[in-house]
Amino acid sequence: MTKADILVHNGTILTMDSQDTIISDGMLAISGSTISYIGKNEKGPIKANKELDTHGGLILPGLINSHTHAAMSLFRGLADDLPLMEWLHNYIFPVEGKMDADFVRVGTLLACAEMILSGTTTFCDMYLFEEEAARAAKEAGMRSVVGEVIYDFPSPNYGILEKGFMYTEELIERWKKDPLINIAVEPHSLFTCGEELLVKANDLAIRKGVPLILHLAETKEEVKEIEKRFGKRPVKHLKHLGLLGSHLIVDHCVHINESEIELLAENNVCVVHNPESNMKLAAGIAPVPAMIAKGITVGLGTDGCASNNNLDLFGEMDMAAKLHKVNNLDPTVMNAQTLIQMTTIDGAKVLGLDKITGSLEVGKRADLIVIDTNKPHLIPMYNPYSHLVYAANGHDVKHSIIDGNIVMEDRRLLTLDVEDIIERSKEKSNKVKEWVRKS
Amino acid sequence: MTKADILVHNGTILTMDSQDTIISDGMLAISGSTISYIGKNEKGPIKANKELDTHGGLILPGLINSHTHAAMSLFRGLADDLPLMEWLHNYIFPVEGKMDADFVRVGTLLACAEMILSGTTTFCDMYLFEEEAARAAKEAGMRSVVGEVIYDFPSPNYGILEKGFMYTEELIERWKKDPLINIAVEPHSLFTCGEELLVKANDLAIRKGVPLILHLAETKEEVKEIEKRFGKRPVKHLKHLGLLGSHLIVDHCVHINESEIELLAENNVCVVHNPESNMKLAAGIAPVPAMIAKGITVGLGTDGCASNNNLDLFGEMDMAAKLHKVNNLDPTVMNAQTLIQMTTIDGAKVLGLDKITGSLEVGKRADLIVIDTNKPHLIPMYNPYSHLVYAANGHDVKHSIIDGNIVMEDRRLLTLDVEDIIERSKEKSNKVKEWVRKS
Repeated sequence: MTKADILVHNGTILTMDSQDTIISDGMLAISGSTISYIGKNEKGPIKANKELDTHGGLILPGLINSHTHAAMSLFRGLADDLPLMEWLHNYIFPVEGKMDADFVRVGTLLACAEMILSGTTTFCDMYLFEEEAARAAKEAGMRSVVGEVIYDFPSPNYGILEKGFMYTEELIERWKKDPLINIAVEPHSLFTCGEELLVKANDLAIRKGVPLILHLAETKEEVKEIEKRFGKRPVKHLKHLGLLGSHLIVDHCVHINESEIELLAENNVCVVHNPESNMKLAAGIAPVPAMIAKGITVGLGTDGCASNNNLDLFGEMDMAAKLHKVNNLDPTVMNAQTLIQMTTIDGAKVLGLDKITGSLEVGKRADLIVIDTNKPHLIPMYNPYSHLVYAANGHDVKHSIIDGNIVMEDRRLLTLDVEDIIERSKEKSNKVKEWVRKS
Repeated sequence: MTKADILVHNGTILTMDSQDTIISDGMLAISGSTISYIGKNEKGPIKANKELDTHGGLILPGLINSHTHAAMSLFRGLADDLPLMEWLHNYIFPVEGKMDADFVRVGTLLACAEMILSGTTTFCDMYLFEEEAARAAKEAGMRSVVGEVIYDFPSPNYGILEKGFMYTEELIERWKKDPLINIAVEPHSLFTCGEELLVKANDLAIRKGVPLILHLAETKEEVKEIEKRFGKRPVKHLKHLGLLGSHLIVDHCVHINESEIELLAENNVCVVHNPESNMKLAAGIAPVPAMIAKGITVGLGTDGCASNNNLDLFGEMDMAAKLHKVNNLDPTVMNAQTLIQMTTIDGAKVLGLDKITGSLEVGKRADLIVIDTNKPHLIPMYNPYSHLVYAANGHDVKHSIIDGNIVMEDRRLLTLDVEDIIERSKEKSNKVKEWVRKS
C-alpha cells in the first residue's frame, strides 16, 4: 500500500497531457508538492492523510491567467463605457499616480482571493510596486510570474528609469529560489519605452534567464504611432531591436498582420489573448485562430479589472470561443478543448512553466482544481470540455490545490482572510474616490 | 405602524422606474403579491412576518429572459463547435423527434431551477408540449409566456398543423386566469411556416389578445431563402402578410437592414436579442444599437441551452455589451445601464407585462432579486450597474421573490426539489444518448 499526503478521487480527470487523456472515475495522489499517482479509482492501494471526494466532479489543472494587473481590482467599475482616452487620462493615470506599496498589496490580495475562488492557480502580473504583488501572491499560496512595469516616465514606485532596472534586478535576486514566485522583466510597450530601454530590458532578461513581457499592438492608434516614429510595424520594430525570441511574451496583438504573425511564429514568441478587455475598450479582435494555425502558443488573460471587470477565466474562455466563431462566421473555430488548452498547458508554455504545471502528470507540481458538477446548469453532462467553456463559471470551482497545498476547500479560502481583505479594500476604494474628485 | 408580509431591507434598490431611481440604504415591503412600499430604510414604521436583511446588497427587479427553449436544457453540450446544418440535422432534429411530454416537463423544470438560481424571474418560452412547460413554470413559481411552436411539418406533439392551432387555443383558454402563466401564439419562422399558417396565427393572436412570436432573420441563408421564395426581405414579407404590429415579437433579427429596422420601429414591433447563441452558432451580429437608436424596444434572451449553453442572463448582458462595443469600435455603445434595462423593464415591455413587472414600483407585482455583494469579485463598488453587467454572474443572486413568493432564499430553492430534478434529468440524458447513437 502506497502512502500520499492528499488523495483526490471519485471524479473525471482531464489531464491536459500531450494525449489529452481523460480518466473517468479517476484518482490522483499528491506527495509533498508533487503529483505521485494518476489513474483509475481503485479503493485500497493508496492511503492519504487527507482525502477529497469530488462526488463525480471534474478534476483538471488549475487555470493560468497569462496577463493581468492584479492590484487594479481596486479600480473595478471605477470608469466604464467611456472613450479610451477619457478612461485613461481622467481616471486610471491620475489614480495610479497616487498609489503606494500598501495599495498594491491590498489590491493584489483582493485579486488573489478572487482568482483562487474562480479556479486560477497561476497568474502573470505586470504592475507597479511588484515586490508587494510577489509577497501577496506568496501569502495567497499562488504560483505567479510578476514584473515591475518599466517605462520612460517617472514611476510612482521607483522614480527614475535607472532605478526601475535596479528594482527589477533586486526582485529577480530576492525571489530566485522561491518555489511559487517567478520574476520577469516587463517594459510596458513600444509606445511608452524608447529603443534604449527595450534593448537594455532584453539584455537583462537574457542575462538572468527570465521572460521578457510587453504589451503589443493593442490599439490601431498605437500601431500608427509606432509606424510614424520608427517607420516600421510593431513586430518588425521588435525584430530590428533584436527582441524576438522564445523568451519574449507579447500581450494583446490585436492589430498584427500576416507577416507579423509569421515573424512571431518563426521566432517562437508566445502571445497572450485578452478578449474581454479588447472588447470592452473596443480595441478590436486579435487574429487568434490565424496565430494558432501558424503554430504560435497563445495563452489567455483577463487583463486588469478596470477593463474586464473580473478575473474569472471561465467567462474569458466562453467569450473568446464565441467571439472568434462569430468573427469568422464559422462555429467550428476555437472549440472548447482549444480554450481549456489555452488556460492550462499552453498558458504554462507561454510562461515557461510547462515543466512543472499546466497538466496533471506524475512528477509535476500539484496545481489542480475540482469542479462541482452537481448543479442544474451543469446537468446533463455530455462533454466535459464544452461544460467548462460554455456552461460553467468560476463559482463552480469547489477545491483548489497549488503546489500540493489546499488553498481552497469547499469554497473556503484557507490561505487568506477574506473579510479582512474586503474591509481593507473598501478603505482603499474610499481613497480612490477622493483622488478622482480632486483630479 | 404599517404591516406587510415581507420586508426586504438594508440594501441599495435599483428600481428601474422611468426616472431610474436608485435608493441607497433602501427598504421594500411586499403585501400579498404586490409591492406596497419602497423608500429609505427607516426602522420601525413597517412590521412584516418575514424580513430579509440584504446586508448592503443590491435589490433589483427579477431578470427577464425574453427568448428561450427551456426544455433544451437536456441537450446542453450534446453537440458543440459543429457546422450549423450538422448540428441541426444530426443532433437536434433527430432527438426532438423522439421527445415526449415528460421529457419537456423534466427539461423545463431543470431550466426553471437554473433560471431561478441565476436571477431570472420571468421567461418567454417557445417549444413543443408547452402545456408541460406551463405546468413546470407554475410549479417553479415563475412568471412566463409560453407558446407551442407551430410549423408546416408534423409535430411530435400535436401531429398535423390544424391540431397545433387547437392545442394553442386550448392553452390560451386553460391558462387565461392564471396570475403567472401567459400564453402566446408562436409560429416558428418564415422559412418553416407558409403564408396561410402565418396569417391564421396572426388572426388567432389578435382575436385572443395575446402576443405573436416568431424567429426572424437569424441567419444569412434564411434571408436568402425568403427572398428567393417570396421576392421580399423578411420584414417586408411580414408587412405584406399584415403581421407587423405592437402584438408582434421577433427573435434574433441578426440580418435586417436599415429600412427593415425602420419598418419594425414604425409598427412598434419588439425585438429579442440573443447574442451568445448568435455568436456560438456563428449566425452574425444583430444591429442592436441601431435598433435602439430608432426607438425599438429590445429585450435579451439566452435562446436554448443547445446553443449557449446556459441560461445565465448576467453572462448574456456582459457578452452583449462587449460584443457591440468591439463590433462598433466604440466603448460607449451599449452601456451597463442599457443592458440592465433590456433585462428588466424593456423585457417586460417586449412581453407586454410592463404594467405588472420589470421595475420596482408600488402597486406592481413583487418580482425581485437580491445580489450578495460581499464577495471579492464585487469589491469595491463604484457603480452598481457596471458591477451587475461586467463583474457579477448568476451565482451572486442570493434571494428571489416572484409574485410575492420567496422562491429562493440564501440560494436554496423553495419551490423545486433540485436533487430529484437532477436525477430525472440524468435519466432523460441517457435516453438522448441512445437516440443519437441510433440516428
